[in-house]
Amino acid sequence: MKPRPSGRTGDQLRPVRITRKFTRHAEGSVLVEFGDTRVLCTASVEETVPGFLRNSGSGWVTAEYGMLPRATHTRARREAATGKQGGRTLEIQRLIGRALRAVVDLKALGERTITIDCDVLQADGGTRTASITGGYVALVDAVNTLIQKRVLRESPIHGQVAAVSVGIWAGVPVLDLDYVEDSDAETDMNVVMNNGGGFIEVQGTAEGHAFRREELDALLNLAANGIGQLLAKQMEALNED
Amino acid sequence: MKPRPSGRTGDQLRPVRITRKFTRHAEGSVLVEFGDTRVLCTASVEETVPGFLRNSGSGWVTAEYGMLPRATHTRARREAATGKQGGRTLEIQRLIGRALRAVVDLKALGERTITIDCDVLQADGGTRTASITGGYVALVDAVNTLIQKRVLRESPIHGQVAAVSVGIWAGVPVLDLDYVEDSDAETDMNVVMNNGGGFIEVQGTAEGHAFRREELDALLNLAANGIGQLLAKQMEALNED
Amino acid sequence: MKPRPSGRTGDQLRPVRITRKFTRHAEGSVLVEFGDTRVLCTASVEETVPGFLRNSGSGWVTAEYGMLPRATHTRARREAATGKQGGRTLEIQRLIGRALRAVVDLKALGERTITIDCDVLQADGGTRTASITGGYVALVDAVNTLIQKRVLRESPIHGQVAAVSVGIWAGVPVLDLDYVEDSDAETDMNVVMNNGGGFIEVQGTAEGHAFRREELDALLNLAANGIGQLLAKQMEALNED
Amino acid sequence: MKPRPSGRTGDQLRPVRITRKFTRHAEGSVLVEFGDTRVLCTASVEETVPGFLRNSGSGWVTAEYGMLPRATHTRARREAATGKQGGRTLEIQRLIGRALRAVVDLKALGERTITIDCDVLQADGGTRTASITGGYVALVDAVNTLIQKRVLRESPIHGQVAAVSVGIWAGVPVLDLDYVEDSDAETDMNVVMNNGGGFIEVQGTAEGHAFRREELDALLNLAANGIGQLLAKQMEALNED
Amino acid sequence: MKPRPSGRTGDQLRPVRITRKFTRHAEGSVLVEFGDTRVLCTASVEETVPGFLRNSGSGWVTAEYGMLPRATHTRARREAATGKQGGRTLEIQRLIGRALRAVVDLKALGERTITIDCDVLQADGGTRTASITGGYVALVDAVNTLIQKRVLRESPIHGQVAAVSVGIWAGVPVLDLDYVEDSDAETDMNVVMNNGGGFIEVQGTAEGHAFRREELDALLNLAANGIGQLLAKQMEALNED
Amino acid sequence: MKPRPSGRTGDQLRPVRITRKFTRHAEGSVLVEFGDTRVLCTASVEETVPGFLRNSGSGWVTAEYGMLPRATHTRARREAATGKQGGRTLEIQRLIGRALRAVVDLKALGERTITIDCDVLQADGGTRTASITGGYVALVDAVNTLIQKRVLRESPIHGQVAAVSVGIWAGVPVLDLDYVEDSDAETDMNVVMNNGGGFIEVQGTAEGHAFRREELDALLNLAANGIGQLLAKQMEALNED
Repeated sequence: MKPRPSGRTGDQLRPVRITRKFTRHAEGSVLVEFGDTRVLCTASVEETVPGFLRNSGSGWVTAEYGMLPRATHTRARREAATGKQGGRTLEIQRLIGRALRAVVDLKALGERTITIDCDVLQADGGTRTASITGGYVALVDAVNTLIQKRVLRESPIHGQVAAVSVGIWAGVPVLDLDYVEDSDAETDMNVVMNNGGGFIEVQGTAEGHAFRREELDALLNLAANGIGQLLAKQMEALNED
Repeated sequence: MKPRPSGRTGDQLRPVRITRKFTRHAEGSVLVEFGDTRVLCTASVEETVPGFLRNSGSGWVTAEYGMLPRATHTRARREAATGKQGGRTLEIQRLIGRALRAVVDLKALGERTITIDCDVLQADGGTRTASITGGYVALVDAVNTLIQKRVLRESPIHGQVAAVSVGIWAGVPVLDLDYVEDSDAETDMNVVMNNGGGFIEVQGTAEGHAFRREELDALLNLAANGIGQLLAKQMEALNED
Repeated sequence: MKPRPSGRTGDQLRPVRITRKFTRHAEGSVLVEFGDTRVLCTASVEETVPGFLRNSGSGWVTAEYGMLPRATHTRARREAATGKQGGRTLEIQRLIGRALRAVVDLKALGERTITIDCDVLQADGGTRTASITGGYVALVDAVNTLIQKRVLRESPIHGQVAAVSVGIWAGVPVLDLDYVEDSDAETDMNVVMNNGGGFIEVQGTAEGHAFRREELDALLNLAANGIGQLLAKQMEALNED
Repeated sequence: MKPRPSGRTGDQLRPVRITRKFTRHAEGSVLVEFGDTRVLCTASVEETVPGFLRNSGSGWVTAEYGMLPRATHTRARREAATGKQGGRTLEIQRLIGRALRAVVDLKALGERTITIDCDVLQADGGTRTASITGGYVALVDAVNTLIQKRVLRESPIHGQVAAVSVGIWAGVPVLDLDYVEDSDAETDMNVVMNNGGGFIEVQGTAEGHAFRREELDALLNLAANGIGQLLAKQMEALNED
Repeated sequence: MKPRPSGRTGDQLRPVRITRKFTRHAEGSVLVEFGDTRVLCTASVEETVPGFLRNSGSGWVTAEYGMLPRATHTRARREAATGKQGGRTLEIQRLIGRALRAVVDLKALGERTITIDCDVLQADGGTRTASITGGYVALVDAVNTLIQKRVLRESPIHGQVAAVSVGIWAGVPVLDLDYVEDSDAETDMNVVMNNGGGFIEVQGTAEGHAFRREELDALLNLAANGIGQLLAKQMEALNED
Repeated sequence: MKPRPSGRTGDQLRPVRITRKFTRHAEGSVLVEFGDTRVLCTASVEETVPGFLRNSGSGWVTAEYGMLPRATHTRARREAATGKQGGRTLEIQRLIGRALRAVVDLKALGERTITIDCDVLQADGGTRTASITGGYVALVDAVNTLIQKRVLRESPIHGQVAAVSVGIWAGVPVLDLDYVEDSDAETDMNVVMNNGGGFIEVQGTAEGHAFRREELDALLNLAANGIGQLLAKQMEALNED
């Protein structure tokens, strides 16, 4: 079995760091690091909802995602200059939004919106799973701010959510792929789960050749295990201070 | 167990119809119907490739997706008038493109592009899976045109691909959801497989509550079964005339 | 006199087919065929009006036009992907809208909008005249739906409208040009008339050389004759079922 | 018979003024005035052609049209700020371009482009016909510059072109409608003719009710007469200096 | 000392002409000429304010700037066709707006907007300073219209404002650079001042090499002198009629 | 004299920190902090130049600027989602680019582009001056990378550049305004200077009332002093490691 470029075992996460209050203005502001992947997740509360929810009594949780132009090996064009967000960006921010909404009671949130902005400062694979994992912590901080300000009496968040990537690399299932592995993987899967062991989202894509049911099973096991660790990291970060 | 609105059993596809040569100009032109969902899939050959493949010797297969404004219950704004394709559209056309590329040897195609345009004339759930299933047939027809014109000596298509949606509806796993079921499903999964029983893409999303591993397993079984039938329908259509 | 490529006489229309209820969701849905030109015209009713008519008591009838990318001999770029509707598209949809509004009492329609979407599935010349001719039938069906639902007591449509192209081809005036003739015509004219023999719109363009008054007169005669037949086809379609 | 607001007879043009060399940089620069309508038409020569003409040996003549935001009674949004040219703008500039190309031998022009920019400084009806009439003079001046610079040996312009509007106002045909008449006209027609008495373009639209063949005939007669006067005005301006 | 291309002395303005009522519809309409630079400045009053001022009791003064495509030596692309205003355009119109707001009491204006459109008909350097200088006169005319209509009782304009460019050309400070000088200047500065001798805006840019404090001082002296003359020209124009 | 909110003396900078190698992929990557203002400046080298420099032998230095949506007190709309960069953004990035080009010999750089991306992670006033000051350091690092890779033999950078804001606050001139002071300043000026004491750019704007010559003089003195300190901070950072 070929060793992973990073020297990790197949079921090993990269070092995970979750730094709260990374910036000062947002109601929640978290720098999440999965190894060299670094994403700044801020949660902003606005006392308004999108048109389709107006006068519904229901709130909204949504996400936006961006990469700084030189977060990657070669400079990518700035989407603001291009004049539109690419398909990959839209796909990722839709995923982050769905994942976080899965643990929020939007009625209990009331007619307000929490926007999670996930901006990648440095990319090394797994930016979307890091965004979900860090975005959850920012969301909790923002909700706690609302509770402290007595805007809300109790938290509308009814579960915990985290995400990790898994893939078949050099013929074997591995957890939390970095950029080098990701570029080379035969299969790539992003898994989002809650703290009850339920699946929120499973997105698997064959890159090289189609994957078989037993490979899928092995990947899901790896993911469940990794997500367990990420959920613990989130709790640890939230218990600080 | 609550009966499905359409009266189908849980593992029953809607009537599937694949009409080739539906329009006259395209190298491949297929109307695919999954019940009341009707998608026109055309395959167009162009003797050029995107910039990143120029002088690479490799060809490209890509897809574009659109819905006629009144394909749905209420009129949606025309994306050409809005000035951009929405996130859902981009996500779907990226999925269709990936699924079809999974069965094509792009080197063997040579430096040319085949674009699969999937335009939904009438929507009743499952438009992306119908697009992949019908798009494959249009792709085969386009490639056969190239062979007949002696542009290619043999087909660069090395497998067959089809897709179906599955979901948990009213607590039980069901195959090929129509719009009414889809709006109401607790979990929604799109599965793309090849004729070797391998997975090309698995995209599952919890709508109501998170889904459990055994539910996931049941859904994958249903999907595999449905896709088997769709692959047969494709062959049947391709064997005509 | 050079024979027309299609073998038609100079004053002969292509076979015209008008299929109502072609799709299921729209209040009016018509597939109109002028020979190989096939346009899907749907009429959608919305209980709202554009800003300039709000609180005016008056309704609105408008049209949007699009071509599927491979409706033509070579694939055209999808306008939704390009990010804007071209000048030709805007010009055509403005024409269709004006033509249909010419037979509707907008006050009697009440503050609601009927949008006629004309999407060309296959193009072989005359897509705008086919759109007007088929769009009228879809409009009537939509209005009848409003009457059946008792939203309206009587029809605000006070006339019938149809359109045809005429041109000077190989030196002689011909009716209803197909693509081959159109590409080659010296003069091209689109004529829209009502059932009272009045002109709604006359748009003549010299392609090769300027046209003379007597040529214009001959073209208008041809057009009036062709439109008479189209008005009869519309009535025939509307009298079915 | 109701008198025209301007006191003109039905077949009377507004005072027409054509001022050449209105600005200094363009190869042709003409201020054209039809009464209070004032349009600045510049002709710019560029030694390049659009993609579809590259290496064809053929040149191109095209037009762009714009209105200063406060050319009209109420301020219109600046199209550059809105981010796109409206349908009316595109329609008009396509018309101007077609009209001018009708009198130019594009092969004889050689692979270069002449762009006629028509910017309305003040609008009072008839901006498109003034643009064509003044644009022609700017085009001639630009071509003469090319001849003086010995880029061309002889003029590729083989005819003269002018345009006027006519309409049915208060029940009678009138020539060269100003804004007040135009807003109120039952039928509105723009006619473009060459100096051989041939029609380049005829665009008639029923505003209030459909127009009859004899009305159309009367309008065309009026237009032919008016255009004769405009052609003379153009020659007069070109003969100055 | 090298003579200026125009033969002017270093502290000499170009001939300045301010023509009021240049067009007819706008509440203020001024053609301002600084030598061969000609800008049409119109002031339009609208009884509405931008969102951020709604119900604030305060009005707004803003500016938009544009260049006709052939105002310059070579044709520039029309911003309406390009689909956006360039950075230079936005920068200039923001400057004009700030400069004019500096002399208006927005509360006293009441909840209405005055938009100053500055459209360059012919460019020869100094278009932004001409726009401010002419825009002020158009603004005064628009306010006087409001007073005449008894919409306002007294003028909310509490000062006079004008602008001029200065620069280091061929080693010496010069006033009011034309295009030839501007292209060649080592330092370029735009200065906006009021009639109390106060600075509203100072924008100096080193083109060739950095400029020294004593050069800056000399430029400011030149500018103050030139602006004094421009303020007098404005009063002269406003005192006519 | 009213004390500054931060307790600083009038001529005191905020604590300045310049952290090199903040991210890993860019040729230069600097986090610059002026108190609570934090900007990530990356310098990216690309072996290509904009069209207007192709085959000129000359290189290019340019800048792009962005703010993360929640860098500020309230969330701003993401420019990538809005579809365009606002006027303020364009103005700032043009300023940064000009300032840095002022110390680079573009011929000596050779036909390559260095892009300085300045992304504001947290804003507290002075983001443009921090961007220039930090961007310079990133630029030096990128150039040194080119020298180490033997792409360049010697540095094309011939000077040092830094920037600071100054303003009249509570009636007195102060250095390096933070957000609270900036919102409240009567005059706001950004000054860019090189290490020879020359001015690269001076941009002063009266906010409340016009500023007098002696105030301008005082502000320029303050700025020169502050920039001296910033130039020293840059050298200190560059001398590390």
